[in-house]
Amino acid sequence: MKALQLEHGTVALREARVPEPAPGEALVRVSLAGICSTDLEIAKGYMGFSGVLGHELCGVVEACEDRAWVGRRVAGEINLACGACRMCARGLGRHCPTRTVLGILGKDGCFAEHVSLPIANLHALPDALDDVRACFVEPTAAAFEVLEQVAITAHDRVAVLGDGKLGLLTAQVLQTTGCELTLVGRHARKLQLAAARGIASAAAADLPAKSFDVVVEATGSADGMQLAVGLLRPRGTLVLKSTYHGMLTLDAAPIVIDELTIVGSRCGPFERAIPALASGAVDPSPLIDAIMPLADGVAALERAARPGVLKVLLDMR
Amino acid sequence: MKALQLEHGTVALREARVPEPAPGEALVRVSLAGICSTDLEIAKGYMGFSGVLGHELCGVVEACEDRAWVGRRVAGEINLACGACRMCARGLGRHCPTRTVLGILGKDGCFAEHVSLPIANLHALPDALDDVRACFVEPTAAAFEVLEQVAITAHDRVAVLGDGKLGLLTAQVLQTTGCELTLVGRHARKLQLAAARGIASAAAADLPAKSFDVVVEATGSADGMQLAVGLLRPRGTLVLKSTYHGMLTLDAAPIVIDELTIVGSRCGPFERAIPALASGAVDPSPLIDAIMPLADGVAALERAARPGVLKVLLDMR
Repeated sequence: MKALQLEHGTVALREARVPEPAPGEALVRVSLAGICSTDLEIAKGYMGFSGVLGHELCGVVEACEDRAWVGRRVAGEINLACGACRMCARGLGRHCPTRTVLGILGKDGCFAEHVSLPIANLHALPDALDDVRACFVEPTAAAFEVLEQVAITAHDRVAVLGDGKLGLLTAQVLQTTGCELTLVGRHARKLQLAAARGIASAAAADLPAKSFDVVVEATGSADGMQLAVGLLRPRGTLVLKSTYHGMLTLDAAPIVIDELTIVGSRCGPFERAIPALASGAVDPSPLIDAIMPLADGVAALERAARPGVLKVLLDMR
Repeated sequence: MKALQLEHGTVALREARVPEPAPGEALVRVSLAGICSTDLEIAKGYMGFSGVLGHELCGVVEACEDRAWVGRRVAGEINLACGACRMCARGLGRHCPTRTVLGILGKDGCFAEHVSLPIANLHALPDALDDVRACFVEPTAAAFEVLEQVAITAHDRVAVLGDGKLGLLTAQVLQTTGCELTLVGRHARKLQLAAARGIASAAAADLPAKSFDVVVEATGSADGMQLAVGLLRPRGTLVLKSTYHGMLTLDAAPIVIDELTIVGSRCGPFERAIPALASGAVDPSPLIDAIMPLADGVAALERAARPGVLKVLLDMR
């Protein structure tokens, strides 16, 4: 099969073996896959990964020891847990210390014609959710993780910092709570996408200090982190939704003086993302910049890395 | 009256006016006052404070519009709230944005023969709590704040980083939960004080990574912060109990990947500290290095700043 592989620091489309599913795994024919900022970081060396890139996918089960799965359209959770440790026993397989992670850590990803995944990681997709939007199940689930970790109600004043795809998707997810929501960004075109969904936006400089109950940091920059700290009311909550690469420098005194809570947030519940996408409560379609064939995978990664480009999908159909 | 004042960057014992209580305030004759690390930072310019230093006290009410208070032994909360704002309405007067803070922000402190305090800030002291231990009500309350913010049970594995007076006091307070507690420090003499209370200790290097449910950072250093992040299990909670001065640099990636929660923690409930000190559940006596007269206040501050010295009290009796 064709696969977009990272080897010795170089990404190239290569001929690879179709993965042989381990016991308990299914073989999935990938339909479409999404390029995430994490993929771009990994291609630059983050996580020291080598192998097939990619972790956002929808596909069709082609082979599975449980025959009921064969032929079903699925999305797949990306953390492959041991199932036996203390974390797994608590239902926190996403934090299993010996986990592998699809296209990120020790497990070939989905920028390929086929991928293998544990049956436990599969989620059947409803007919109402087409392949293109189904590619957003994984990042939408990550956005829903915020609501798993922080109680946000219609009474809360919430800011999302960053108008990239993570910020735009997170804003849509938080909007489902009915909270008083503001998206903070610098790009008129991206903020218009949010406005079309009824999400208000503002420039950072126009926001009142110490007035938000919850701030979600989705810029991945130290500036965003410091801005977030300044926007929160005492006892407010800062959610770190971006993974930070490298060292972060910040003035920590306000965290103690204002007794802020900071919550790191990573992967989330597919069970919440799938119905939200199927119903249209969350619509990622406007984020799509291009859908490119796997054969153009290297160009697709380059395109996804360009400033201003939101989502690029790879098409294996 | 005599008062230990910070003026133009210099601390000196000066003759000052006895404070005139504002409406709703009481005049307190200070019996004893404790020197806190924050006082030493303020003397060096932190907070830009000028006036009478000091915020840990016990004393006797000398004058009060509510006559029932006169003659009573009291400790005093240090945040003077407006009583009318959104924070005060929520019962979070300690976070009132226009608050003054005793000996820290816009309000003369208690390193003096008299201090004025709102009646609402007074807490009557039981006979079982003598003056010396009553000086520890404020810092003990700050330690109890951890238990107000984080649910800690006998099933939790908890580390306190730092064997200074804040760490030692916090360890005693956390010990009341029955949790599996380890104090992490470098000073054999201080760790022995904890051992005498049945609190286990360890060197940082001997602790298993990613194994603690809760870590309380009480060193005030970036090193302590980074150590704490490494000790926490996924989804664990880091409590920042020290106020950080200046910028903090840390690797934030594990916060997101392990979905850690970081909680800033400042002043706490006197209502919990007073009975814990009165019953002996928390005993700060071994932390006392010296009790010196107010007349030797400058020397007392110098002594409190020496490496290895724990608590120095000022005696105004």
